[in-house]
Amino acid sequence: MRPIAVVGGTGPEGLGLALRLAAAGEAIVLGSRQAERAEAAAASIRDTVPDAQVTAATNAAAIAAADRVVLAVPYAGLPRFLDGGANGLADKLVIDVIVPLGFRDGAFEVAPVPGAGSVGELLQSRLPRARVVSTFKNLSAEKLRALGAPLEGDVVLCGEDAGARAEVAALVSAIPHLRPVDAGGIRNARFLEAITALLLNLNRRHKAITSIAILGL
Amino acid sequence: MRPIAVVGGTGPEGLGLALRLAAAGEAIVLGSRQAERAEAAAASIRDTVPDAQVTAATNAAAIAAADRVVLAVPYAGLPRFLDGGANGLADKLVIDVIVPLGFRDGAFEVAPVPGAGSVGELLQSRLPRARVVSTFKNLSAEKLRALGAPLEGDVVLCGEDAGARAEVAALVSAIPHLRPVDAGGIRNARFLEAITALLLNLNRRHKAITSIAILGL
Repeated sequence: MRPIAVVGGTGPEGLGLALRLAAAGEAIVLGSRQAERAEAAAASIRDTVPDAQVTAATNAAAIAAADRVVLAVPYAGLPRFLDGGANGLADKLVIDVIVPLGFRDGAFEVAPVPGAGSVGELLQSRLPRARVVSTFKNLSAEKLRALGAPLEGDVVLCGEDAGARAEVAALVSAIPHLRPVDAGGIRNARFLEAITALLLNLNRRHKAITSIAILGL
Repeated sequence: MRPIAVVGGTGPEGLGLALRLAAAGEAIVLGSRQAERAEAAAASIRDTVPDAQVTAATNAAAIAAADRVVLAVPYAGLPRFLDGGANGLADKLVIDVIVPLGFRDGAFEVAPVPGAGSVGELLQSRLPRARVVSTFKNLSAEKLRALGAPLEGDVVLCGEDAGARAEVAALVSAIPHLRPVDAGGIRNARFLEAITALLLNLNRRHKAITSIAILGL
């Protein structure tokens, strides 16, 4: 099986996910706009996980090398990314972990996503042939990167393609202590993005790193 | 201390909260647009909780009798309620449990709230002298009404007034098994309303009654 590309893999969330997926035995091609930065990040993963299968590339080359692409570019960079480099995503499984955050008057909020109700919906609309699954929006990058500490929380995922959701759920399950929760269609992405803003406000107020669990399943 | 008014107390969420608060020893005045319907609902609570202190009234009379008002009218009825009967709420602690839900193409969604980002924000804006706390948005009415079954989940609350949040947090704590979680300002209400739509979609998909927990606090 071809590696999983992590686009924007030098940012905190992308790097944290790449680390966790590599530790779970997945082959990763870590992408960045600059190949040298990707190489440095890949080396840091190999330092932490000696048997990690992690290579580095530009974002475009990482996408070309993969069928499954974690999209972890910062939200502020997403329009440029979509205008410039999204063609390669056309037929891929796109794992969207982007949250459109803003900060105003002392609190986090969800920034408006022009033309869509969420980043997940925007991506599926801009990439009609891709199978977009929005997920991993509610796990702290800091915790993802602290490999020695167990994660906790449920990883809710959504997308239009049930097979794609199942593939991503299997990836979630491969990371110890995480449980995938299938929410159905991509329109749920807006709720996942809202939860991130709430958790960040809780983190600020309570000096904590929070995550969510879904009870009753 | 004067009773807690539950406005819209014959609907499932209002009735469930009135039942739980009465079981916790709070005096309740249960309001409805028709006093006879309120009386029938109050009687059903007294049947379940023999020592419940529950009286019945019209919504307006219930508000007049209370300093703390749980607002549980259906979202569809909120504009009419605000235009007609909201004057009495001016200086009260208003506990907003309303969720603006819609349903489209097989999934729940958050309905737009004209002029505001959430019902909580709308209420605080329309009732500038009231102390609005949005909470209890993510507990199922069905579970609230099943007094024999323990509740589970965290009750996130938000509002501009820290004292009001503390008062409501104490009410949450009075209900066994529930933990209040203070999220800060009222702008978080939109996130609580989003969570409700997500939980309802999970309920539908998984044939469950879900709630949330905040981990890491």
